[in-house]
Amino acid sequence: MNKDLRIRWDSVQKLLVEAGSDACLISTNVNIYYLTGQVFTGFLYLPAEGKPVFFVQRPLGWDSEQVVSIRKPEDIPGLLNERNIPLPENLFLEEDQITYSEFVRLEKAFNPARTGNVSTILRQARMIKTPWEIEQFRISAVKHAKAYHEIPSVFRKGMTDIEFQIEIERIIRKHGSLGIFRVYGRNMDIFMGSVLTGDNAAQPSPFDFALGGAGLHPTIPIGASGEIVREGTSVMIDMAGNFTAYLSDMTRVFSFGELPQEAYRAHRLSMDMHNRLMEKAGPETSCAEIFEWSIQMAEKDGFAANFMGTAQQAKFVGHGVGLEINELPVLMGRSKDRLLPGMVFAYEPKFVLPGIGAVGNENTYLVTDSGIEKLTVFEEDIINLLPPTP
Amino acid sequence: MNKDLRIRWDSVQKLLVEAGSDACLISTNVNIYYLTGQVFTGFLYLPAEGKPVFFVQRPLGWDSEQVVSIRKPEDIPGLLNERNIPLPENLFLEEDQITYSEFVRLEKAFNPARTGNVSTILRQARMIKTPWEIEQFRISAVKHAKAYHEIPSVFRKGMTDIEFQIEIERIIRKHGSLGIFRVYGRNMDIFMGSVLTGDNAAQPSPFDFALGGAGLHPTIPIGASGEIVREGTSVMIDMAGNFTAYLSDMTRVFSFGELPQEAYRAHRLSMDMHNRLMEKAGPETSCAEIFEWSIQMAEKDGFAANFMGTAQQAKFVGHGVGLEINELPVLMGRSKDRLLPGMVFAYEPKFVLPGIGAVGNENTYLVTDSGIEKLTVFEEDIINLLPPTP
Repeated sequence: MNKDLRIRWDSVQKLLVEAGSDACLISTNVNIYYLTGQVFTGFLYLPAEGKPVFFVQRPLGWDSEQVVSIRKPEDIPGLLNERNIPLPENLFLEEDQITYSEFVRLEKAFNPARTGNVSTILRQARMIKTPWEIEQFRISAVKHAKAYHEIPSVFRKGMTDIEFQIEIERIIRKHGSLGIFRVYGRNMDIFMGSVLTGDNAAQPSPFDFALGGAGLHPTIPIGASGEIVREGTSVMIDMAGNFTAYLSDMTRVFSFGELPQEAYRAHRLSMDMHNRLMEKAGPETSCAEIFEWSIQMAEKDGFAANFMGTAQQAKFVGHGVGLEINELPVLMGRSKDRLLPGMVFAYEPKFVLPGIGAVGNENTYLVTDSGIEKLTVFEEDIINLLPPTP
Repeated sequence: MNKDLRIRWDSVQKLLVEAGSDACLISTNVNIYYLTGQVFTGFLYLPAEGKPVFFVQRPLGWDSEQVVSIRKPEDIPGLLNERNIPLPENLFLEEDQITYSEFVRLEKAFNPARTGNVSTILRQARMIKTPWEIEQFRISAVKHAKAYHEIPSVFRKGMTDIEFQIEIERIIRKHGSLGIFRVYGRNMDIFMGSVLTGDNAAQPSPFDFALGGAGLHPTIPIGASGEIVREGTSVMIDMAGNFTAYLSDMTRVFSFGELPQEAYRAHRLSMDMHNRLMEKAGPETSCAEIFEWSIQMAEKDGFAANFMGTAQQAKFVGHGVGLEINELPVLMGRSKDRLLPGMVFAYEPKFVLPGIGAVGNENTYLVTDSGIEKLTVFEEDIINLLPPTP
């Protein structure tokens, strides 16, 4: 872990140097965890060169060489002086994550000649995963698959989507889910993932997830809406793989009885897209290209109007995953990113079919030196929840 | 609901006028919900006088007189012009909630002569609940009590704290919990609440909740830690009452078998504190005073070193609740607030006893015109999870 942290410090420090920054100050939970291996309330001071200092407000009584206790951020400049660490002239702050008031307070406390944005640097550094991080995805993905294996055992005829989801939540928690499900951006809310059945899959949501769903209440308008899972409809299950701090992302489709043939055709198309990705993608593949050929394959098979939603269609077919569910790169038309070894991303070509529901899989892939490797290994066909007894 | 929204607009507009603001722009989920009755991605433009306009980015296709579709915030000034609404000279933004980058972008788009902070205004307005909001608390509190009633039925000897918590989560979800549990402030993470047994209750956490707990993983260091619930220890259950958008907050203490007498004495003291609150508190009671006499009662009975934690003691004994779990007022020594009719707050005098665990109740109270009313009505004694069979 310590060796791995050093890799992360190095990659951020390299980007700080390139950006002409002397140091950055980090205080958001995800970035604190990324750079220290734990969440605390306080600040990580990472100079462009040299060792970081952990300035900790809470918890109290944490004894370590790297830890300096503080009451408030205004204590930091004096403590840096005491340690003969020069105050930064060009201080980078998490401008896309901390509040305006926090920024103003920190800028006043440090009074640097210039400031810059370390949020973008962290997003970029976190895009390439370290060996320890990749291992965390593997652990999560294995548990994720084991949990999904139990899903059919809790389905009962007459259940609502949310009743089904609650039983799935319990399975996932019992397999070690940490519950917390981090999303980048202030305005994206979801609770543990999404279970979509029938036409609820077509409901637009205010949030920028792949699909929507009306949700149970106007305060969280996403996902399951309380409707009964009807025979002949699909149930798309996209529940969080948060078994470590690193999220595996996996969607599978279940059905109550047999679905119309159209559903199997569209689902087969999603599987073909995944197969094509496995064959063609690897280092230097353009993210925009993956998006483009996914759209083209949907068009060719006559499913363009169903691809990534109907009334409201998502403008991406995949996204990086990590400590947050929506990291870089984004597989979208205007992405400039190319796949690079160490990236971990979810690919989720999905179709919404009126009267049936959503179909299509989502898998999490690791970019290796020579191609991509599927981390979420689990049955990919549509799974019939209540097959006829022979 | 529409009549109720008007009360909320009025209270914010009154504060805007007092602060010399022409208008505010709202975009955080909680404040959007507070002022429109639903969550959307976009902006609420509320002038100091006149009707608000909902500028909606997502979901698409929302048709209503008040709704104007936009692609980006830069569209708003032009659309206001089209409607003959003058651009604000003194625009208030959610400075304590939106990111620095968002603030900079909005300021550039509007180019107002001055800006101010509407976060504090919203915190103040939201402190006094409307009739509809109070009804939402009542609905939540009733379901909360019904769910807690089922807790003993899922306890089994040999369970870990987290196994017990998972079953409680399921009960709460089945009673209609929305799952999502909103906290004010960027750095406070918790998942659905907390189940603390034995000495885990004494573990300091980085977060500013009343008690801590080591948690399951360094990425979410709070609450249950995976230890077995041992005979002769307490289990403090403080799980979210999120059955509507408005959170009821209720802690109850359970035990595995009989506890040492000290535990019943400390728990009795917590109940006495609640009784004193019920007798003495009402409009104009000082929040700091409630904190002070709580500390004094703890000292008088010899429990000062156990009050609100041991190694790390919380500096408050209660807090406002609402759309977020930590609203105003805060019952702490340096609070300047006084209780006012319409406030809803949680009072949670708790004790951590080495070798036993945490004891003490938490209830949610409504301030009425003449006193306070308990909303979370449920058994208050320590409940023995496995009483000896007669």
